[in-house]
Amino acid sequence: MSFREDGQAALEWTAAYLERVGDYPVLAQVEPGALRAKLPPSPPEEGEPFAAVLRDLDELLLPAMTHWQSPRFFAYFANTASEPGILAELVTAALNQNGILWRTSPALAELELHVAGWASQLLGLPEGWHGHIEDTASTSTFAAIVAARNATGGRVVVCSEQAHSSVEKTARMLGLECRSVPVDAEFRLRPDALDLDDACCAVATVGTTSTTSVDPVAAIGDACREAGVWLHVDAAYAGSAMVCPELRWAFAGVDRADSLVVNPHKWLVTPMDCSLLWTSRPVDFRAAFSLVPEYLRAGDAVDSLGDYGPALGRRFRALKLWAVLRCYGRAGLQAMIREHIRLAELFESWVRDEPGWELCAPRPFSVVCFRRDGEDEENERLLSAVNATGEIFISHTKLDGRYVLRLAIGNERTTEADVRRAWDVLRREASAL
Amino acid sequence: MSFREDGQAALEWTAAYLERVGDYPVLAQVEPGALRAKLPPSPPEEGEPFAAVLRDLDELLLPAMTHWQSPRFFAYFANTASEPGILAELVTAALNQNGILWRTSPALAELELHVAGWASQLLGLPEGWHGHIEDTASTSTFAAIVAARNATGGRVVVCSEQAHSSVEKTARMLGLECRSVPVDAEFRLRPDALDLDDACCAVATVGTTSTTSVDPVAAIGDACREAGVWLHVDAAYAGSAMVCPELRWAFAGVDRADSLVVNPHKWLVTPMDCSLLWTSRPVDFRAAFSLVPEYLRAGDAVDSLGDYGPALGRRFRALKLWAVLRCYGRAGLQAMIREHIRLAELFESWVRDEPGWELCAPRPFSVVCFRRDGEDEENERLLSAVNATGEIFISHTKLDGRYVLRLAIGNERTTEADVRRAWDVLRREASAL
Repeated sequence: MSFREDGQAALEWTAAYLERVGDYPVLAQVEPGALRAKLPPSPPEEGEPFAAVLRDLDELLLPAMTHWQSPRFFAYFANTASEPGILAELVTAALNQNGILWRTSPALAELELHVAGWASQLLGLPEGWHGHIEDTASTSTFAAIVAARNATGGRVVVCSEQAHSSVEKTARMLGLECRSVPVDAEFRLRPDALDLDDACCAVATVGTTSTTSVDPVAAIGDACREAGVWLHVDAAYAGSAMVCPELRWAFAGVDRADSLVVNPHKWLVTPMDCSLLWTSRPVDFRAAFSLVPEYLRAGDAVDSLGDYGPALGRRFRALKLWAVLRCYGRAGLQAMIREHIRLAELFESWVRDEPGWELCAPRPFSVVCFRRDGEDEENERLLSAVNATGEIFISHTKLDGRYVLRLAIGNERTTEADVRRAWDVLRREASAL
Repeated sequence: MSFREDGQAALEWTAAYLERVGDYPVLAQVEPGALRAKLPPSPPEEGEPFAAVLRDLDELLLPAMTHWQSPRFFAYFANTASEPGILAELVTAALNQNGILWRTSPALAELELHVAGWASQLLGLPEGWHGHIEDTASTSTFAAIVAARNATGGRVVVCSEQAHSSVEKTARMLGLECRSVPVDAEFRLRPDALDLDDACCAVATVGTTSTTSVDPVAAIGDACREAGVWLHVDAAYAGSAMVCPELRWAFAGVDRADSLVVNPHKWLVTPMDCSLLWTSRPVDFRAAFSLVPEYLRAGDAVDSLGDYGPALGRRFRALKLWAVLRCYGRAGLQAMIREHIRLAELFESWVRDEPGWELCAPRPFSVVCFRRDGEDEENERLLSAVNATGEIFISHTKLDGRYVLRLAIGNERTTEADVRRAWDVLRREASAL
């Protein structure tokens, strides 16, 4: 294998993919099992050239991919793996650093703390919080709730009925009760309905998954302080938007948080996976997670990052976030977030002005919840029809018991023409039904 | 930013790094905080060129790295990020697939199941087990113990005193008791001392962290069956060696396992992170982890891989493992493992034959435990002196209360000359003390 030659081919494949990604059907148009049926049942006995891998990537794997990098990916939370982030992942893999201890990679340990500090400045967080990187928000929220349970002794996790499923999943894994709090008409947790009895942790969400609603963090935080309950803020999606000062209203009260999660792999152009977890109570995290067996006693005068979460080893995720923050700068990130919000606002105005369609929730950020007037089944059929075109990919949720469509803007390549096309496809398919 | 131009520079940087990695001091020779002191306290306002990132990578970050890719990295479990694995990570980052559901990336979901199947054939596992990929063995072991607790209701996790710290960490996170079983003279769990009372899970280790000893899996498995206790086998390091039939004695009884973890990022030339988790009881995993909120109800006729572990989203880790298995083939992987074992055997023979040195544990695979005759303090000083040279990097453990040095062979670049140099450095520094 010639690394330079194969690397050249891989780089060219990657560059061509990014140029063409808008030409592919956004949602994979394949049947379950179709890919596996084409793969050899057993691995090869002798090694094959890397070129064979690239060939099968094109011929077998590409048709079975849903293109998250497409400018017309509007499902879930649309996101972007930016070019500096992608290239940083190449370097990360080649370095193969493993941050078990400070000494196993001082660069990893220090850069992770450092970029978490940079990000906290960009998002306007209080000074002095301890930040590190986990893989996904599921892990960050899990870690926060473990620390909360150890610190407080409570056995109940409290969150709104619009909170992310990872909160309930964590409670199940830990054998804790998950208590669901009703929301108001705008899908925000109702502080008057908050019951913190026997709670270890309340989770407030800034940017819920269905509607991106913003829970009243300050009121929840005050109630938590009074009750001695840990406040975890889940801003996995919307936290990145705090890079724009005009959106910081959504972080009002976040200074009361004991922990906070924001995912740069959601809306801060960082490739999967990268989840920032801050805490104002690092001592409680270390109490929950620090455990040093003899074979890792190194006498380093520095914490290990594994003392702040479940995993012992960690890859060098900080490198890509560092590359992103360097290459975009504050201004570049602000420009992208503002453009996404402008596009969402535009789409929202089209729905508002069109007879036969309705908006289903306020739109604080870049996600629009809407539906066609009529039955749930009609909207379900519309979603299927629209996604089957391959022209766009959107997802759905249920609000007040009704089936609702979601259009999420978050890919850097998305232009006004892409959003207009989404609206055209939706109206065309709705008429055809 | 021109992706092709910046990509060219990143690729050239990477190729040059891999060519030169043997020239750097293996263990970073820096003081804590030295890197952070050189980094700007705040992120830039305006974006910078990617070339600035590469420049600082060279000037600031490289001196603060411990070089896991060095042929003379002999600490912990030495490993390799191979060239196909590295290039697959570039592609993975560019595709930015997120396997939340089958439909969000059929290629990811199906390839992950498929390469887990390939790997199970390579390692000689029973047919029909369900395999998927987690980030690290910490997560795999955590997931197995959550499933075990849910399936059995027991409140105790049982493992040998030589088991990996992630077992105890999991028990702490889950609020379970961790019961430690003594080992025999060769550091293997003593089945006669196994107490499974109120246990949910027993963890048997094939290749313990300190000495790579192999627990008697069959005997532990029989006891578990009788007691209705889940058997989890931790073969994070040594499992990869099962690609060689002559080493399969170490997997005797593994067919009794309810779950099994093997880390391709340890000894199967896959970049961090990639941990394979198999189970013979997939229904119990789904019972523990499946949770489908409305916004993810897709009607896909296929499981989501998030139903088998704590995280909801996952990156396309299967792609690099697929590239590795393709480009090495069974024969290539066998050749590397056999060479590492040959080199370890050689080093072991040198220690055995040299007066003033002793071997401290049997050597089933590629890790040699040894020490200089004399006091613990002398061996500790020797470790520091040796690592301070930058020529090699080794780690230590404690066995029977004594300080012991470990030389672990696992990097693909390591040659006989590198191992000989390690021995020369050790003897030279020991004489100098």
